[in-house]
Amino acid sequence: MELKSMILGHFLVVSLALNAGLLYKDYSKGKHKSQHTFIFKNESLVTKMAFLETNKAPLTEVIDLDHGDPTMYEKYWQQLGDRTTVVIPGWKFISYFSDKRNLCWFLEPEFGDAIIRLHKLVGNAVTDDRYIVVGTGSTQLFQAVLYAVSSPNASEPINVVSAAPFYSVSLLELVSLLELLSSLELLCSYPLITDFLKSGLYKWAGDAHKLEKDNKPYIELVTSPNNPDGSSRQSVVNNKQGILIHDLAYYWPQYTSISSSPADHDIMLFTVSKTTGHAGTRLGWALVKDHEIAKKMTEFIVLSSIGVSKESQIRAAKILQVLSDSHENKDHFKESQPFFHHSYNLMAKRWKQLRGAVKTSKLFSLPEFPHGSCAFSGRNFASQPAFAWLKCEGEIEDCESFLRDHNILTRSGKHFGDSAKYVRISVLPRDELFDQFIDRLSALNST
Amino acid sequence: MELKSMILGHFLVVSLALNAGLLYKDYSKGKHKSQHTFIFKNESLVTKMAFLETNKAPLTEVIDLDHGDPTMYEKYWQQLGDRTTVVIPGWKFISYFSDKRNLCWFLEPEFGDAIIRLHKLVGNAVTDDRYIVVGTGSTQLFQAVLYAVSSPNASEPINVVSAAPFYSVSLLELVSLLELLSSLELLCSYPLITDFLKSGLYKWAGDAHKLEKDNKPYIELVTSPNNPDGSSRQSVVNNKQGILIHDLAYYWPQYTSISSSPADHDIMLFTVSKTTGHAGTRLGWALVKDHEIAKKMTEFIVLSSIGVSKESQIRAAKILQVLSDSHENKDHFKESQPFFHHSYNLMAKRWKQLRGAVKTSKLFSLPEFPHGSCAFSGRNFASQPAFAWLKCEGEIEDCESFLRDHNILTRSGKHFGDSAKYVRISVLPRDELFDQFIDRLSALNST
Repeated sequence: MELKSMILGHFLVVSLALNAGLLYKDYSKGKHKSQHTFIFKNESLVTKMAFLETNKAPLTEVIDLDHGDPTMYEKYWQQLGDRTTVVIPGWKFISYFSDKRNLCWFLEPEFGDAIIRLHKLVGNAVTDDRYIVVGTGSTQLFQAVLYAVSSPNASEPINVVSAAPFYSVSLLELVSLLELLSSLELLCSYPLITDFLKSGLYKWAGDAHKLEKDNKPYIELVTSPNNPDGSSRQSVVNNKQGILIHDLAYYWPQYTSISSSPADHDIMLFTVSKTTGHAGTRLGWALVKDHEIAKKMTEFIVLSSIGVSKESQIRAAKILQVLSDSHENKDHFKESQPFFHHSYNLMAKRWKQLRGAVKTSKLFSLPEFPHGSCAFSGRNFASQPAFAWLKCEGEIEDCESFLRDHNILTRSGKHFGDSAKYVRISVLPRDELFDQFIDRLSALNST
Repeated sequence: MELKSMILGHFLVVSLALNAGLLYKDYSKGKHKSQHTFIFKNESLVTKMAFLETNKAPLTEVIDLDHGDPTMYEKYWQQLGDRTTVVIPGWKFISYFSDKRNLCWFLEPEFGDAIIRLHKLVGNAVTDDRYIVVGTGSTQLFQAVLYAVSSPNASEPINVVSAAPFYSVSLLELVSLLELLSSLELLCSYPLITDFLKSGLYKWAGDAHKLEKDNKPYIELVTSPNNPDGSSRQSVVNNKQGILIHDLAYYWPQYTSISSSPADHDIMLFTVSKTTGHAGTRLGWALVKDHEIAKKMTEFIVLSSIGVSKESQIRAAKILQVLSDSHENKDHFKESQPFFHHSYNLMAKRWKQLRGAVKTSKLFSLPEFPHGSCAFSGRNFASQPAFAWLKCEGEIEDCESFLRDHNILTRSGKHFGDSAKYVRISVLPRDELFDQFIDRLSALNST
């Protein structure tokens, strides 16, 4: 009953027509002090409010696709009702420890089991003879790897590289960017995360293609599929001195085809937020071959936060198990599709809409991806990434500004070491916002 | 029903008499794959197993009081039944955002409300006109403050100091200590947390009393009550160039008397683990006066983990609200005492037992604390800290080794920059373990 009222509350959006424009007021913020009330907010509200303050009387609502908040997934989990509901009594999780016999002693065994089951179901990564290290999102895990593979006694910091285009914001840019409310993802740039503490252990050294061939140790980050351009990637330096970190956050069958042989790299990073959409849970995991690296990563996470929320782990364990159930026990899920089928179809639909709008408007273009056969689904399809790498064609030189003039907020290609003719657009907002975006983009040819 | 069976499961400890000694076997680890099963482990099991392997046939079970796992609190929350149970549907907390209009946009409003209510109830800290920044434990918040108050453009790292004795483990010691299973708290040393990334922004500079008076900026950490010795502290450098961080983790009425005027410092750190015992929840909060510092702390937490688990926050909100209810709506809690009364009494009982055992054995001494009038409870009492700072009297020079010979694991005073005649002992384990410890300590005079 309480659950029902929460779900109803979720749809409480009150709209008021003000002046010539549309302005949403977020009443859910109000004075609901009940501990069970979930405060639901219109995704683009605050950005829009700020926008309205500085830009008088815009004619349309602002559509914020600048950050990759994966709210698209909300609807699926709502459809599943209370299958994924967790109940946690107050006396649980008092202790720091989850399993003292595990190298990563703060990993909840249930979460570890759910991760292994999911990888075996999808076939996207080898889990046998791997250590699982859990982190507060893959952001923390990336830093844990840097700490684990660098040497405290080295005379200079080890170089960290990645093949361009990668997501790049400098510390200098950060200062001004922080003024923006939409700075969330701007912060999550690997160069910035690497350098923000001015560590003497490691430093960002830019494009992997430009790394000097000097036989010094280095760390190469391989993000595949890549953010922002969705391309499949492999390491480019290929020197024996290199340590590879594979960020496989988007290597799931709703985004790209899964190869017939599971990924088998030394260090592989995954995150719940890109798998199931639960970004607020702040949970990632690393599959690590080497015992010493796994141990030092664990050490980093102890030093940085003495472990990881057990509540998040228990909840994610449940969600991942139900996800696997939705594929392996289809009979029990008659009311809804298996998770990856549903999310594949939704991504396919959105990319079709997007390509349609681009074709209609004639102002833009999108990258084409090679088709691949997916060993998980049996489908043959081209990647349908979580972000679209949109290019303004013709005379539009600053695509971000152009779209902003039409109240569409995106991220300029210049933050990725590429041309301002490109923007990155999130394909993961709620349906309503994405549909509005498609309508507006399609209409842009006539303006 | 499920809850009952979990509580029953919690007491499943199977003991087997083996050889001359007692050895516990942890059956609960077994193959329970149910997602609701809570795996309960005997706290000292693993340490003991490792000990048994290297030390043949000890006569008694090992009592591990080396780390401060606050399992003492489990029983109280069990007594409260499902008042503090949280129910979280699977579709909640998809988004990164909790409240986009808040400077700390990943702070769940419910958790913020619960923090303010609790501080107003206890009167231990000013919350008016303060920013609340939430972190993955106070460990992450401490690092957030270092980042926030240091300058990226400074020619050298800013000095971080604290008055001795403080908890100190060097990076060099760390390497060997990591081999120990009980290394958890060893890692949580402020000097180590400050220096482990060799940041160019800040560096640990040791004892605050020894800081050079050169008018350079510095950061002084004031832990009050202090870990390990339980003393009340104030800043010692007192120079206009200084930035003070007050770690008030133990400033709660079960440990020490609360002053009639709430603490009113610029930066105050608290943690759920020392307040209610929920260490596994990994949650802390900072009360911050300055807007810019609060903003940069938020920035650090975004760069380090893109926010903080929403599940932990929702659960902690509920627990803190019920805690406040237990004091403000006593009529509804007839089956159990208000939280701080219960935990004050338990700490008082334990310290009485401890002082009794010390008196009986004649081998040890404990610090005496001045009495203070508690504005919260109206009681006049001497501090009863979460850790006991025990001294071996007479000819015992290495107190840790002496106790280890009697299968009591503690932390040597040398890790706190003090004499090996001292050890730090956790006063927060489960009842059974604490009672065993008291029995063994009392008996030590005859050995």
